[in-house]
Amino acid sequence: MSHMLDEIRQQPEIVRTIINTQFKNVEALSSAITARGIRFAYIAARGTSDNVATYAKYLLEIEHSIPTALAAPAVFTIYEAVPNFGPNALVIGISQSGEAPDVIAVVDRARQTGALTVAITNTASSTLAGVAEYALVTPAGVEQSIAATKTYTSALAMIALLSTALTPNQPNRLEHLRRSADLMDRSLRVDDVMQELVARYKDMEGCVVVGRGYNHCTALEIALKLTECCYVAARAFSAADFQHGPMAQLHEGYPVLLVAPDGKAYETMVDLTHKLKDRHPAIIAFAHNCDFLTGTETAIRIPGTVPEWLSPLVYGVAGQLFAYWLAIASDHDPDHPRGLSKLTQTT
Amino acid sequence: MSHMLDEIRQQPEIVRTIINTQFKNVEALSSAITARGIRFAYIAARGTSDNVATYAKYLLEIEHSIPTALAAPAVFTIYEAVPNFGPNALVIGISQSGEAPDVIAVVDRARQTGALTVAITNTASSTLAGVAEYALVTPAGVEQSIAATKTYTSALAMIALLSTALTPNQPNRLEHLRRSADLMDRSLRVDDVMQELVARYKDMEGCVVVGRGYNHCTALEIALKLTECCYVAARAFSAADFQHGPMAQLHEGYPVLLVAPDGKAYETMVDLTHKLKDRHPAIIAFAHNCDFLTGTETAIRIPGTVPEWLSPLVYGVAGQLFAYWLAIASDHDPDHPRGLSKLTQTT
Repeated sequence: MSHMLDEIRQQPEIVRTIINTQFKNVEALSSAITARGIRFAYIAARGTSDNVATYAKYLLEIEHSIPTALAAPAVFTIYEAVPNFGPNALVIGISQSGEAPDVIAVVDRARQTGALTVAITNTASSTLAGVAEYALVTPAGVEQSIAATKTYTSALAMIALLSTALTPNQPNRLEHLRRSADLMDRSLRVDDVMQELVARYKDMEGCVVVGRGYNHCTALEIALKLTECCYVAARAFSAADFQHGPMAQLHEGYPVLLVAPDGKAYETMVDLTHKLKDRHPAIIAFAHNCDFLTGTETAIRIPGTVPEWLSPLVYGVAGQLFAYWLAIASDHDPDHPRGLSKLTQTT
Repeated sequence: MSHMLDEIRQQPEIVRTIINTQFKNVEALSSAITARGIRFAYIAARGTSDNVATYAKYLLEIEHSIPTALAAPAVFTIYEAVPNFGPNALVIGISQSGEAPDVIAVVDRARQTGALTVAITNTASSTLAGVAEYALVTPAGVEQSIAATKTYTSALAMIALLSTALTPNQPNRLEHLRRSADLMDRSLRVDDVMQELVARYKDMEGCVVVGRGYNHCTALEIALKLTECCYVAARAFSAADFQHGPMAQLHEGYPVLLVAPDGKAYETMVDLTHKLKDRHPAIIAFAHNCDFLTGTETAIRIPGTVPEWLSPLVYGVAGQLFAYWLAIASDHDPDHPRGLSKLTQTT
């Protein structure tokens, strides 16, 4: 078995471990966030970790009213500028290796301006963990596959856990997070059917992946996995951004992956399918609601629901399986995408 | 002549008009930004305007030390949440029509939390101009082509002008902005050569467009124009993000557009070309430096230089011409991309 598939399957258990072992750590950070009167957040990350940052942005803004920026690390590294953060800023760096030089630069310099700094990493002994005031270390174990899977969902889960710590008056949120691990488990069982479903896409050259709101990150991550592991020119959009121009490119039979879990963004995904109808794209739908799946070319049914803010954990797993089996069907080795290494160092 | 080409050609003159007529308006806003002790900025926009927002983020962070976020309007519209901005936040909405419901929602609700709000729009009588405390109205005239060109560069120029007002001790910055309009003029003269150059790409199905730092926005905007006007599956990346996964998809002959003006980001673009070499992509280079252009499949030489922070104005024009002539070569009507309308209203 490839490392990637093995690591995909480890994910529910790792999420449970995070819930069971990391609450004290996120609680300490949560107290600092409250005590410091944080007014805005700023998150530096690259690749898969940047998709985690997108998740964190929606969660921090919607649930915790904290306006959140994604960093442009070039500002710090190429232009050697340091925005004036000050003590009311929360600056988070996300990097599985903890050795991404540009992410380290952002956190290190932000700390010097007085910001509350946090590392989210899978490597306790990393430089990133060392430069940040708080380190949240995901217990995912070493990731062997170059394409990140378990470090993606563990960083998502760590942020979800932080969110539960920030809302102590809503204890059911922690319970929902636990249930998400169970639904991840059940979603892994779509494996057999996925292996068959992907066959018709093995010559796919390009596609778009659309999600909205909390699952904007899921669309971005599925597109990245398809690009890395299957060499598909996949582009991700929010359902709104897609309509502001990119939709023009669609033509009959062009593959469009839609991520549409139950929740507040669901109706906007339904609206989008109406707008796409005339173009006759090949829709590959990830959803629980059978109405959404009906009439699509390929329906991937997620066997349950969780509150929308946790759905990226579940839909992310389904997307990983799609990319994994498509890579296998296309005769690519998903553990070793051409030209990539596990640690990409950009400045 | 198509509206699009006509509007592309109007741009240098519109930028001069902005410099000559809008300084008082941006100066008033600049004083408010200073007086209010702005600690962070938050910008809402869609489509082409969102690429202007990316430009503004780099400029505000690098030159003015203001950490800047791009909005996720779904937070406000779908989730009905309002981040807690308060009086130290600068919230900017960018929309040529001024009627984008999601952009209006962000500005309107941010103003209710006490933020300093600004509209950048091409329509003085628009709803967006009405809800914001300050309105910067670009004098670009009505844009007839569905693909935005002159409203893109005029919004860029308005932000560049604001930047000069925020640095009154550096009067040469205003002079540099004036010189940029002249270089835009000279860059328009690549028209004839562009018309010939694009012919070989008329069956192009996909490509990537890479820029870095200040020209991340240029890469995004060229990719959007190629998608809208030429139905090419174009994806834009910063040179760093491209190396964190997406680069794996490249294969021999795959078109890669590189935006590489002189400046601090130039060397990272050179580094990228070294990393791409083994893949033998078809490089289409936009640059002034002949070293960069040498050995590329298609070299588009920009006939001069301006300080890097103003180069998006110039390289944006060259990118528009490339997309325009490619659309013509591919028998598409760039004024009327299929399925798009001038005013896209998403919520």
